Amino acid sequence: MTTLHPFDQALALQHSDLRSGLFTGTTSPAYWNMVGPFGGATAALALQAVLKHPDLLGEPVSLTVNFAAAIEAGAFEILALPVRTNRSTQHWTVSISQNGQVNTTATVLTALRRETWSESDLPPPEVPRPSDVEPIRIGPEGVAWLAQYEMRPISGKPPSVWDGSGTDSESRLWLREAPQRALDFASLAAMSDLFFPRVWLRRATRVPAGTVSITTYFHADANVLAGVGTGYLLGRARAQRFFNGYFDQSAQLWSEAGALLATSNQIVYYKE
Amino acid sequence: MTTLHPFDQALALQHSDLRSGLFTGTTSPAYWNMVGPFGGATAALALQAVLKHPDLLGEPVSLTVNFAAAIEAGAFEILALPVRTNRSTQHWTVSISQNGQVNTTATVLTALRRETWSESDLPPPEVPRPSDVEPIRIGPEGVAWLAQYEMRPISGKPPSVWDGSGTDSESRLWLREAPQRALDFASLAAMSDLFFPRVWLRRATRVPAGTVSITTYFHADANVLAGVGTGYLLGRARAQRFFNGYFDQSAQLWSEAGALLATSNQIVYYKE
Repeated sequence: MTTLHPFDQALALQHSDLRSGLFTGTTSPAYWNMVGPFGGATAALALQAVLKHPDLLGEPVSLTVNFAAAIEAGAFEILALPVRTNRSTQHWTVSISQNGQVNTTATVLTALRRETWSESDLPPPEVPRPSDVEPIRIGPEGVAWLAQYEMRPISGKPPSVWDGSGTDSESRLWLREAPQRALDFASLAAMSDLFFPRVWLRRATRVPAGTVSITTYFHADANVLAGVGTGYLLGRARAQRFFNGYFDQSAQLWSEAGALLATSNQIVYYKE
Repeated sequence: MTTLHPFDQALALQHSDLRSGLFTGTTSPAYWNMVGPFGGATAALALQAVLKHPDLLGEPVSLTVNFAAAIEAGAFEILALPVRTNRSTQHWTVSISQNGQVNTTATVLTALRRETWSESDLPPPEVPRPSDVEPIRIGPEGVAWLAQYEMRPISGKPPSVWDGSGTDSESRLWLREAPQRALDFASLAAMSDLFFPRVWLRRATRVPAGTVSITTYFHADANVLAGVGTGYLLGRARAQRFFNGYFDQSAQLWSEAGALLATSNQIVYYKE
């Protein structure tokens, strides 16, 4: 008997007519956050519906997910529609609904890549190796999804004292899934949303905060991801601007070998 | 007699039933690029349909626009739908069509902001004042939209010789509309797409390239924009990763006084 990885359980989708693009699924207790699913898991689900569609062209290049309303524990529907298919690119719209009400919208670009001149303009920061960094639990107790990842924070750990003393919003950490699981586009999408709200770090103050929209660009194909396998990713996140209730958060994910696999940006609501 | 600014002409939308969210418009010759409209003008149009909708809640916070297919010169339709309205946020889907075929999809987040603790974590780079930088025409001759902006490049100018000698993808420039026009959300959306493709700079090689998806986060409200008025913006753009046909491009726009007004990211197709 094979036991599915919790992430694969969370991504399980059913369908009656595959070509309709309509899937059903159930929220995963293993990826529960405080008042709803971990946003990264929801982003991965939106992408997964596209990846399961029989008309899919190519591989993911860009994913934008908008968290429009709370997702409740239980069943949901995902509708993935190929809006426009060109020779080498395909544009998708995706929505997740519960009880007939849309709670999540997304757009996805997939494409057939060709081998071209390629280069990174952003080398990874110099950091100690994963084995030289202590794994610690980040974030509040009782939050299920945090147990699904191994995190080894290098700098920018969550403040140990919430005394308003913060000066900077950047975090660096090694991360991978726990239990280990070979990297794919869905897990890369989820891990792009793994960073705790920058406002907590910048202010050393715990205020209500939640991602409202996230955009992830994939800079890898299936071969590159297979090469990373179950290896660690180096993640970096920082904020650029906090303004009257919303801030942006810019993130990068490199392989341990130094390949920039994904760049991601999100806009986050915060209070006070 | 008042003459409309070319940008306001480009943004002119008609409607029969305003609440349906269905608008019609015509592409603007003044914002024509090489084989279609300037992407920034298209992004501004998607946003404009939301801003004209009678059910609008708040002001723009996030805008994602996907360029799914070529837009032809002439008439188009825009459909802007409020998918989910909460107490202080509203999520929109937008599509632009010609002859019944969708060529552009977009999602927009608008929100009522409250005054909160605010801070910039990304001060503007130190640069000479606009009056100390020469205005030059950037980009190929015969491209109409370039004439709609005054650009004063500080660093990272387009290569004068295409000899493959490039080493870095960052550009800095002062910019504003020509003729001048008071800054608003639509023009900020357009100016977020004003940077020439980073691959040209990085490689000093002219290859076919075009934006496929752009996401802009607004870090300002109408009062802040009114304060900027017709002043210069300081723009900075750089690439992070070029991989097999697509690269990302990260941009910031500050006011001359140093306020970070918008941060923007795009994924760009390139050939060879």
